[in-house]
Amino acid sequence: MSHSPLLRVELLNTGSELLLGQVLNTHLQFLADALWPLGLGISRQTTVPDGPVIREALLESFARADIVFVTGGLGPTTDDLTRDIVAELLGLNMQEDPAIAAVIRERLEKRGIRITDRIFRQAQRPEQAKVLSNRFGTAPGLYFPPMRLAGRGEALSPHLFLLPGPPRELKPMVETEVLPRLRALLPPAPNRRMRLWRVVGVPESHVEEAVGEALLALGIEPGYCARPGEVDVRVIGTPEQIEAAGKLLQTALGFAILPEEMRSLEHFLVAELAGRKLRLATVESCTGGALANRVTNVPGSSAVFGYGYVTYANEAKQELGVPPTLLEQHGAVSSQVAESLALNAQRRSQADYALATTGIAGPSGGSQEKPTGTVYIALAEPGGTVQIEHHVLQTDRLSFKNLVTQAALNMLRRALEKAPASAS
Amino acid sequence: MSHSPLLRVELLNTGSELLLGQVLNTHLQFLADALWPLGLGISRQTTVPDGPVIREALLESFARADIVFVTGGLGPTTDDLTRDIVAELLGLNMQEDPAIAAVIRERLEKRGIRITDRIFRQAQRPEQAKVLSNRFGTAPGLYFPPMRLAGRGEALSPHLFLLPGPPRELKPMVETEVLPRLRALLPPAPNRRMRLWRVVGVPESHVEEAVGEALLALGIEPGYCARPGEVDVRVIGTPEQIEAAGKLLQTALGFAILPEEMRSLEHFLVAELAGRKLRLATVESCTGGALANRVTNVPGSSAVFGYGYVTYANEAKQELGVPPTLLEQHGAVSSQVAESLALNAQRRSQADYALATTGIAGPSGGSQEKPTGTVYIALAEPGGTVQIEHHVLQTDRLSFKNLVTQAALNMLRRALEKAPASAS
Repeated sequence: MSHSPLLRVELLNTGSELLLGQVLNTHLQFLADALWPLGLGISRQTTVPDGPVIREALLESFARADIVFVTGGLGPTTDDLTRDIVAELLGLNMQEDPAIAAVIRERLEKRGIRITDRIFRQAQRPEQAKVLSNRFGTAPGLYFPPMRLAGRGEALSPHLFLLPGPPRELKPMVETEVLPRLRALLPPAPNRRMRLWRVVGVPESHVEEAVGEALLALGIEPGYCARPGEVDVRVIGTPEQIEAAGKLLQTALGFAILPEEMRSLEHFLVAELAGRKLRLATVESCTGGALANRVTNVPGSSAVFGYGYVTYANEAKQELGVPPTLLEQHGAVSSQVAESLALNAQRRSQADYALATTGIAGPSGGSQEKPTGTVYIALAEPGGTVQIEHHVLQTDRLSFKNLVTQAALNMLRRALEKAPASAS
Repeated sequence: MSHSPLLRVELLNTGSELLLGQVLNTHLQFLADALWPLGLGISRQTTVPDGPVIREALLESFARADIVFVTGGLGPTTDDLTRDIVAELLGLNMQEDPAIAAVIRERLEKRGIRITDRIFRQAQRPEQAKVLSNRFGTAPGLYFPPMRLAGRGEALSPHLFLLPGPPRELKPMVETEVLPRLRALLPPAPNRRMRLWRVVGVPESHVEEAVGEALLALGIEPGYCARPGEVDVRVIGTPEQIEAAGKLLQTALGFAILPEEMRSLEHFLVAELAGRKLRLATVESCTGGALANRVTNVPGSSAVFGYGYVTYANEAKQELGVPPTLLEQHGAVSSQVAESLALNAQRRSQADYALATTGIAGPSGGSQEKPTGTVYIALAEPGGTVQIEHHVLQTDRLSFKNLVTQAALNMLRRALEKAPASAS
């Protein structure tokens, strides 16, 4: 793998809320993904509560690691101690940074939030610390180059990054402030690359069966990571091995592989529809807006998506045009109603494609004939043909919504694959 | 909190897949939740890769903790070393356990999986280890009572639990095998409790300013955890201290505190609307279905939510009833259009309340006058009055959608607070 064998990286997550189980710690997964292309792997991750134990954990990591990332404890409250503890360990004085103070002031004034002394604690930083700007919060990150540890002879501190805890602040800071700094610090990566393919709508065991042994025969150890409705295949090797692996995967699974730059099925579909000047509408019963939400998470989706309907009540389905007799005869959760929803949404929105969902998300509402988890998904296509899928997805309510939206988007992907690529 | 002050608990997660970011580590959150009612809190969590470093990490935890949980490394492959390392540290011999072997054989035969010598490695256990049965996998868990550490004089090992890594195996084992054993081991919980209040719509620094010093004066060290649009305040103390803290918070922030049993604003609102027999409709431009999605994430939401509209295109807004002249004069992102959307959605759905969002989620689409992040939120109330909020929320697209839905739901919460509690 492309990890620098000489550099040891550790991650220290601080925050009582993590140890109390109130907040799920996603930092390790995010940072591991972000550091990978630089040839860096994390060798140990530790979570400690807010408070003086951070000092002890930092000293342990300092003794082992070349690069240490710390998350949390940079905010304005009394349990935010990270800055002060680091200043003490490195023998640095705290000083007010006028640039940080100005950014905090501007940010708060713009949002109409009252400025308090407490908030200005975040403008204090240890001398010699480099500021990592925070576009999405008031507490900046800090970078400390290696320096003598206070009262510990010749021992040098590692490259030290103090980062905010909230993911919406951490992630952009890593992208724009941390990774460029690390690239400048690191030696050029050796002749090994990583490549990842995202495969949608094929179970993990089928993916491995289709490509596993052939990849091993190329001298490559593949990694698989399964999520609801998709599997990532990761390959590490020389550029030649990566190219051979790509050809192999395209041959075996090409129909199910997302283009490299597409992070998700919805990104792929928005780009594909926009390229063909086609439009999509959604009408949702059991997914309750989750499908429209996924589509509109994609920047630029307004070019292809104009109308969404959440027809949770039968009256809402009728208002859209579903005949009351259809609802009476077959029930709201039926292929007939799914079809009618899709066709009516297509007609009302004048979209080229319309996706409809109707099902029983649970936990209650199921019956002997239609158990919880039953769902019908309909796709109305140009010309008025309708594809229908029926699934029984027995899981929790949120996973159900997620799996149904994945299946619905995947129906559209397959339909676009079959349709001629020219504009309609 | 009801944590035993005398018992220190640590969690050691082993598994290279965690450090590589392939699998999100949910063990800490799960175990913290499970141990809480027993009065146990986790004081440190560490992730290390598969391999001999497990030995070093175990010795560190042994030196600090009274109870240690280890996850992972119990499987049949060559990187599953946990059992062997523990046997060495405790000076125990490995032996085949015929009961484990029989369970493995039965399980694999039932599933038609070929039995290999490798799989039978899992039937090996250190002598003196108690078996924790695994209903969902072949590798059993193991429990070791405190015993002398090999070659370390009088030092005793902690209570040690070796548990499987996959959550579907770990969770039932903790419920049925680990918790009963811990209950038998533990002294009755001391006179300390934890309580958490969720405060919505008030920035973290204002929350601390409002209650921080008064809580400290009660002899309580509060903890704060901020998420988009909400802050959790955590308090640990005697029942009397908790009660006093509750009164203090109600006085200072009562208007913004969710009832204890409500996990989120949407859970609270669905319960509140259902209790009053009121109905809500949504019409979304910039949030694109995210608002309806949050409401319908709540089981039973169909009792209060029947109609949602995603009017991303101007034509969709007109179809709902927004006059074209209004769109031309003021633009789609305006208080006038927000108001018209809310009133039209209320009328069409015959709901008591209707929430409307229109704004610029970005990254593009902003102007000098209406920068990216601009949003108008309208709430149509019974009788046809409309409240309107205007914000500029400069953040990434997904956080923008999340913050706008939080602000919209919070408008409805405040309106319900002012409205008479009887059914309309």
